[in-house]
Amino acid sequence: MPQQNASSSSPHVIEQIAIGDELLRGLVVDDNSAWLGREVASLGLEIAHRQVVADRIDDIVAAYRLAASRSTWVVVSGGLGPTVDDLTAEAAATFLGEPVALSSTALEQIGAWRAARAQLDKTAPASLQSLDEKQAWLPASADVLLNPVGTAPGFRIRSGDTTFVHFPGVPREYKKLAQLHFLAPLRDAVLSDGGSPPLSRTWKFFGLTESAVAEHVNALFGPGRQDDLTLHYRAHFPEIHLTIVTRSSDRVAALERHIMGDSRVRHRLFGEGETSFAGALLDTLIGRGETLAVAESCTGGLIGQLLTTVPGASRAFMGGVIAYDNAVKTALLDVPPTLLATHGAVSRECAEAMARGARARLGTTWAVAVTGIAGPGGGTADKPVGTIHFAVASAHDVHHRSVTLPFERDRNRLASAYGALDLLRRQLASPVQSPSPTP
Amino acid sequence: MPQQNASSSSPHVIEQIAIGDELLRGLVVDDNSAWLGREVASLGLEIAHRQVVADRIDDIVAAYRLAASRSTWVVVSGGLGPTVDDLTAEAAATFLGEPVALSSTALEQIGAWRAARAQLDKTAPASLQSLDEKQAWLPASADVLLNPVGTAPGFRIRSGDTTFVHFPGVPREYKKLAQLHFLAPLRDAVLSDGGSPPLSRTWKFFGLTESAVAEHVNALFGPGRQDDLTLHYRAHFPEIHLTIVTRSSDRVAALERHIMGDSRVRHRLFGEGETSFAGALLDTLIGRGETLAVAESCTGGLIGQLLTTVPGASRAFMGGVIAYDNAVKTALLDVPPTLLATHGAVSRECAEAMARGARARLGTTWAVAVTGIAGPGGGTADKPVGTIHFAVASAHDVHHRSVTLPFERDRNRLASAYGALDLLRRQLASPVQSPSPTP
Repeated sequence: MPQQNASSSSPHVIEQIAIGDELLRGLVVDDNSAWLGREVASLGLEIAHRQVVADRIDDIVAAYRLAASRSTWVVVSGGLGPTVDDLTAEAAATFLGEPVALSSTALEQIGAWRAARAQLDKTAPASLQSLDEKQAWLPASADVLLNPVGTAPGFRIRSGDTTFVHFPGVPREYKKLAQLHFLAPLRDAVLSDGGSPPLSRTWKFFGLTESAVAEHVNALFGPGRQDDLTLHYRAHFPEIHLTIVTRSSDRVAALERHIMGDSRVRHRLFGEGETSFAGALLDTLIGRGETLAVAESCTGGLIGQLLTTVPGASRAFMGGVIAYDNAVKTALLDVPPTLLATHGAVSRECAEAMARGARARLGTTWAVAVTGIAGPGGGTADKPVGTIHFAVASAHDVHHRSVTLPFERDRNRLASAYGALDLLRRQLASPVQSPSPTP
Repeated sequence: MPQQNASSSSPHVIEQIAIGDELLRGLVVDDNSAWLGREVASLGLEIAHRQVVADRIDDIVAAYRLAASRSTWVVVSGGLGPTVDDLTAEAAATFLGEPVALSSTALEQIGAWRAARAQLDKTAPASLQSLDEKQAWLPASADVLLNPVGTAPGFRIRSGDTTFVHFPGVPREYKKLAQLHFLAPLRDAVLSDGGSPPLSRTWKFFGLTESAVAEHVNALFGPGRQDDLTLHYRAHFPEIHLTIVTRSSDRVAALERHIMGDSRVRHRLFGEGETSFAGALLDTLIGRGETLAVAESCTGGLIGQLLTTVPGASRAFMGGVIAYDNAVKTALLDVPPTLLATHGAVSRECAEAMARGARARLGTTWAVAVTGIAGPGGGTADKPVGTIHFAVASAHDVHHRSVTLPFERDRNRLASAYGALDLLRRQLASPVQSPSPTP
């Protein structure tokens, strides 16, 4: 994918060091580093290097030496806890050639956090615990960095032109401390260096491949690198997210016009920024005062799951029927046994009957239905694995669509759930669609 | 967590180098590296170092120099594709001080893959494509490594005592090539070095914390490191997986007896190895010739989704009702409106009525129901966020359980889905439970 780079001349060379045997052993996946990469990109900068290091003093010190030789900011995570495997402070002191010392500031912060915690949770201890003190032993020259959401404080050290910031590896604490003690000062430094803050905008698509989005964007900006903008493509199956980072509002506006100017692209855009696919659809329904039911066969509850992940979904989503077995399609959705015998459960007729049945039984404005063959088994020559039928019922009519999906079971199911909701989304977006009264 | 190390004296020092701007920008999460870490651990070895490097020749060469100075095996991923950002072969040649050359072996492999692919998919081209040749330009001294599942071949180079193997970053191709060209020869080397292959066994728990599992294990092996075994704890919310890697079958047998000897631990064990939580329950039901329905309120379809992730779930799982709105609880599950008015939807009475209703409507052996408050809104002083009621109905009776979960919305929902299925799992495991006829 074309990656265009706006930050090659930045004075900030940023490096990550993640410490922990559990990372190298694959027992946890390091989401913190990916998150920080995206946050840094939104400032128009990039992470230049990343090292993952075992819980061994010598290895940690070697990683610090390498980072100090090439980077201006080093974000270190992990190894700040109270156990014998937590060696980061000792390694940092060794690297600096200084002793560790008990920081009274750190100790006070831990004590204050314990006291505050005990106020909220009566079962939590209000005073310092036996292992707390270890977390207050820091390199003698370190600055303590407040941790408002946990016991282990962060700390900052400097060596030559390089600043090292240290945060706990627990994601909630890592993100909070990184925001407070790294991203905020970095943003200030970017602003004082260069003037205008970079703009960042993200568009989210369903039903287009990453290549198709990139081709469309290249038709505007050309396929090469551009000095004044960075483009990111993120595949979050089955969604594609496009982000532009630039200091030029003209560039953002041009890209927006370019997306909105092509109906094949515009119709696949479901939201921007933090909007989720299901959340956008629910917002539309809530705004129209309409309600939704689902009838799920091959998705087995996944559509309901996607919708109810959104807090407040109950304002539009009433529920539905998981009709995995054919008998349930008849008993709870009124699909006639003769229809099933004639056309089979994986058919346009069945999908439409499921949607009508769910809408009638639940008394909603709309119902979506899906029936298909997710695989790996169950395919035939006529109806291969990946054959999926969708239907959307309203008071006026029933819309149908079918696809043949090329993925394995999990992705076929996820794409099916999206496809069913997308059929409704596009109908709601259509200008000829009049609001339907609840029956 | 205590980590015990069986491999400190190994002659194999293994390093990973992952290449790609998209990794540093957080646009993809590097699951390959975590997977390889677990595979290496199952051989009784460990990854010593990991570097993540941008798509820049100088940076890649520097990473190779560092790796050659400290490691015996280096597994490199990414940058083997056909675009201008794919620089790995050029960087490897620069590191070796040799030219890149067109490999006829690589070109033949790519041609053979195209021809084979076209046999399977009539829309795929049968001959070499314009960008294919770039992937056959490799360092002059490289050995080509067959890629049976994609176009880009892997390759191997040597520098002093260090062997570098290169695989594409696409997960399916990475894993296939890593198995063939790294893990298999590494396993052979371990065997020829040392004798018996290490044994690996994994136990999976629901309803115990990682600390509780570790405490139980420490009561057997002690909290310190042991020379002849390695223990891994992996938190895969809400499951905890415990793996032992050792060359001693006595150690494995001792741990199994220790787990089975404590009923509090044994009752929380749901499976071993690749078994999934839902899969284990479905296997039990299929073995008994029994069927299951679900009635979901706060989980909104998630229980059905977990069950139907398992291929062949239809042999026991019939379907169910997503009763998100109270009207659906009455219309499709026959929960009396007076019950809802008296006790509320989040109550023992409602959960039991939902389970009975689902079982009667779907005609199954068993039905599980869940109703609760996942948050963030909806809590009251009496029924705070996290209050969840489960019920399991059979022909004989209805069992109930309630919990107050401490997580945020997503985890409260996931733990609720598990909790509902676990109530059934434990009932099926109970020796007093007689098989129930389908009504």
